[in-house]
Amino acid sequence: MKINILTYDGMTALDAIGPFEVLARLPGAEVLFVGERAGPVRTDTGHLALMAAATLDEAPPADIVLVPGGFRPPLAEGPLHDWLRAADRATTWTTSVCVGSLVLAAAGLLTGRRATSHWLALDELARFGAVPTPGRVVVDGKYATGAGVSAGIDLALDLAARVAGLQVAQAIQLGIEYDPAPPFAAGSPGTAPESIVALLRVQRDSIFVAE
Amino acid sequence: MKINILTYDGMTALDAIGPFEVLARLPGAEVLFVGERAGPVRTDTGHLALMAAATLDEAPPADIVLVPGGFRPPLAEGPLHDWLRAADRATTWTTSVCVGSLVLAAAGLLTGRRATSHWLALDELARFGAVPTPGRVVVDGKYATGAGVSAGIDLALDLAARVAGLQVAQAIQLGIEYDPAPPFAAGSPGTAPESIVALLRVQRDSIFVAE
Repeated sequence: MKINILTYDGMTALDAIGPFEVLARLPGAEVLFVGERAGPVRTDTGHLALMAAATLDEAPPADIVLVPGGFRPPLAEGPLHDWLRAADRATTWTTSVCVGSLVLAAAGLLTGRRATSHWLALDELARFGAVPTPGRVVVDGKYATGAGVSAGIDLALDLAARVAGLQVAQAIQLGIEYDPAPPFAAGSPGTAPESIVALLRVQRDSIFVAE
Repeated sequence: MKINILTYDGMTALDAIGPFEVLARLPGAEVLFVGERAGPVRTDTGHLALMAAATLDEAPPADIVLVPGGFRPPLAEGPLHDWLRAADRATTWTTSVCVGSLVLAAAGLLTGRRATSHWLALDELARFGAVPTPGRVVVDGKYATGAGVSAGIDLALDLAARVAGLQVAQAIQLGIEYDPAPPFAAGSPGTAPESIVALLRVQRDSIFVAE
């Protein structure tokens, strides 16, 4: 089971590391962090670099490709989109977290397909031909998209059960003790105080900018 | 608000990145990944390296120190424990995720204090003088410990509210869309199927080894 996780400067670390922590525990998993350049990749808050182990050209075909979201995700046509389209031809699952779905859609991979994204970016999927579909995890064919940032853990557990069975997925969940207990109920616009939702709508462009 | 996150070879990536994604969004946050060596730090599954930006000697005093768990966490007396004890004298909060609490306890910082850990390691806290206390997040004085791996997100949101207020913490929660929806209920030994709990007890030593 080969899994390629895309990296790019400005990516959100948890978008990648949440699902990584699940998928890396699949039996026989080989996870590769890939990027336009190999080496340190600066994440969105500026305080952390992850290492891309291979360039896009070096990356072998994978069963699962995952695209994280981030600040200014790569939406412009270019080598990264070429790579995504080629990688997609080999995958069993092509997946994203947060505004990573905008990247997949901009590369033409979600045309006419239902997909989710960060709640502040969901509507933008339509600009790129996808069908905005609210949901923590949305699966349409082999395309599985997750909502904002932390949703990648839920996405990956769902995926783990599909590729390796329920028992394996449950063992991974228990191994990472994923029994979440958020101290507040502010995790979605439907449950957060209205003032907090309004605040984030105003700050939207500093959270991510889809150019 | 200065935050130092400890790194070491074999650490579990999500233990650090979950809380990082919350704490880095505190107003004025300066997060530094620190380690015995600066540069790439290999995480437990062998597929990913995070960059330590500064050595322990270079790290300035911080308001919050966070110790992640991992495979073979550093429990032996040495420079890393010296650093932790010195760092602790400057902190407002000394914190851990997963078996990171064993490291804090082994360094003598949790003596007589209530603390939590990964469910498979909870009892071991007593070996190091701490009081094993089941819980997703356990706070005793300025010492805040989280349960296994994914609990770091809950720990950090709790901490965010204590240091920056409820509104800030809620805004961060909504920003990372932390409205978890695990597809299964196997995240704790109390809710997982008994066969899965038994499986993990058998595999315990391959999940982490506290030497």
